[in-house]
Amino acid sequence: MKIALFPGDGIGPEIMDEARRVLDALDLPGLVVFEGDVGGIAYKRHGHPLPEETLTMARAADGVLFGAVGDPECDNLERHLRPEQAILGLRAELGLFANLRPATTFAGLEDMSALKPEIAREIDVLIVRELNGDVYFGEKGMRETANGEREGYDLMSYAESEVRRIAHVAFRAAQGRKHRLCSVDKANVLETSQLWRDVIIETAADYPEIELSHMYVDNAAMQLVKKPGQFDVIVTGNLFGDILSDQASMCVGSIGLLASAALGERQTEFGTFGMYEPIHGSAPDIAGQGKANPMAMILSLAMLLRHSLGREDDAVRVENAVAKALEDGVLGGDLGGPAGTREIGDAVLARL
Amino acid sequence: MKIALFPGDGIGPEIMDEARRVLDALDLPGLVVFEGDVGGIAYKRHGHPLPEETLTMARAADGVLFGAVGDPECDNLERHLRPEQAILGLRAELGLFANLRPATTFAGLEDMSALKPEIAREIDVLIVRELNGDVYFGEKGMRETANGEREGYDLMSYAESEVRRIAHVAFRAAQGRKHRLCSVDKANVLETSQLWRDVIIETAADYPEIELSHMYVDNAAMQLVKKPGQFDVIVTGNLFGDILSDQASMCVGSIGLLASAALGERQTEFGTFGMYEPIHGSAPDIAGQGKANPMAMILSLAMLLRHSLGREDDAVRVENAVAKALEDGVLGGDLGGPAGTREIGDAVLARL
Ligand SMILES: CC(C)[C@H](C(=O)O)[C@@H](O)C(=O)O
Ligand SMILES: CC(C)[C@H](C(=O)O)[C@@H](O)C(=O)O
Repeated sequence: MKIALFPGDGIGPEIMDEARRVLDALDLPGLVVFEGDVGGIAYKRHGHPLPEETLTMARAADGVLFGAVGDPECDNLERHLRPEQAILGLRAELGLFANLRPATTFAGLEDMSALKPEIAREIDVLIVRELNGDVYFGEKGMRETANGEREGYDLMSYAESEVRRIAHVAFRAAQGRKHRLCSVDKANVLETSQLWRDVIIETAADYPEIELSHMYVDNAAMQLVKKPGQFDVIVTGNLFGDILSDQASMCVGSIGLLASAALGERQTEFGTFGMYEPIHGSAPDIAGQGKANPMAMILSLAMLLRHSLGREDDAVRVENAVAKALEDGVLGGDLGGPAGTREIGDAVLARL
Repeated sequence: MKIALFPGDGIGPEIMDEARRVLDALDLPGLVVFEGDVGGIAYKRHGHPLPEETLTMARAADGVLFGAVGDPECDNLERHLRPEQAILGLRAELGLFANLRPATTFAGLEDMSALKPEIAREIDVLIVRELNGDVYFGEKGMRETANGEREGYDLMSYAESEVRRIAHVAFRAAQGRKHRLCSVDKANVLETSQLWRDVIIETAADYPEIELSHMYVDNAAMQLVKKPGQFDVIVTGNLFGDILSDQASMCVGSIGLLASAALGERQTEFGTFGMYEPIHGSAPDIAGQGKANPMAMILSLAMLLRHSLGREDDAVRVENAVAKALEDGVLGGDLGGPAGTREIGDAVLARL
């Protein structure tokens, strides 16, 4: 079993340290761990946010644990050298097309949400976001219009095979949950969405037991505020998924606790190759101070254990240890508590 | 002074009736009122959701009051015949490029929001959405890929003049408010957004007194949940504006009270030509039952009086009458109250 760790920028390294301690404590037989540079730190050391050797390391692994990237010192670099390009590059190069972003309110933490506790309490949604297509990866550029103006453009598109493979991921996820799938698009305006909707409907024929619905993205953004508990699984394209999944995470209120997976098609010896990262960013303002909550990072490790290493038992062990620590009142600064990074790591380890 | 009324589908006609009664009560000197068909009803009567005579009527008016369109019986028509095309067609044909969507929590109604009352109370944001460009109106279609797959595509783009004119609208709006403008884009991924950001920054030079910030759309969707009170004016493109403005409306909690304006460049004798409509839709489930809350429709009339007819005093009179009715506990079903459409209309008229 091989895992690549990419701590990245800001709070990435310190939260990765805690995930690493949890991983070590599990003492997985024959585990090999690599460490690689991504993001601003990679740019500073190697001149590129996603160095070739990092990519090679990722390709050789069964799963990648990714901290966070983003560094204010790199904000004025040309786009292709900015830290975020490490994420986009890894997604594209590794074919990580399926982004799983579960958002569930932790028992006892309903008050952390900006939503009323009785509404926040009901949130238990899995957002399945397509991650390799859409307007993210279409032809794009700056050009001059006929009358000499500057114009920026980006082509949005989806081909049927791209929609079909993410649809299967979403329908299967719904099978393991409450059997309800809501596909979000903007088919009243976009042809890309019309194709999306057509293919989702075609794919539904393979899953007669799943209750499928469709919602326009503007309405979905409203419903996620009004009654987020109505959703089980949501499937949507790259751009809408970017917006809605962040919105849903914030509805939960404890963004420092949310993990995500980006899965590819490659099957490893133990599961599906994937990259795992916390939802939150690199938080440069608190970096290096030992204040960051490592729980989302540790829960990302749990997702890696489950999906890429086939270690469901270990995944549950880790998740339970985190839940127990929360129950026992071990709260980081993001949750209004006093616990620091190391202290939270210790608390999780003690409950493993 | 000429006003065109387009009641449309669902609850459109019944709420328009109440706005009409308020308009009549104002007894504007020399006012001429036309009525035209749009949406599903227009399709049924004339074979098109936006008949030529409706468009002519709109062009002849100083302002258009628009009810709502959307009819489940039209859901399976070809896209260009669906009710929503009336809105898109009017925006394009009339050059209505500036969508103003204020979202403010009404005093005493903080509890209607899904957000905690102390968070909802702070909401007072104006979303300025570009309405004539972006992926809405770019080249679009279905085609076959090299390997024979169906593919849907839509071109997203903005030219600098399109961004500049909406930027001016937004900066000027901020001058009349709290002098803060937040421009929302996805410049870390989209070239369209990069051009958007560049032009917003250039335009800012004309407004040194406005505090300008930039936010990625995914973060904006989070911040609108976490702390919507942080925003004064938001300016954004057509697609992001569609999503964020609906989200913001729902944060307020009383979507039956929110009005919007779509302004063009044409100056009339009295102000700026524009189209005004409630944020809520045609609500076919309660249509024809006298249950719909006409307040958003009446408040849309107030916006028309202000922007297109230069009747600020009358606008304020109407707005105060609505606010007074709410204060006096005249609540529609959408706010958990018992008042019906006519009763609410009566209540507003009595307080005019
Ligand atoms: C950093 C950025 C390019 C990225 C995205 O838009 O996909 C991020 O927002 C995310 O959701 O992982
Ligand atoms: C009906 C639809 C085409 C429209 C839009 O997307 O602009 C609507 O959602 C709106 O916001 O007015």
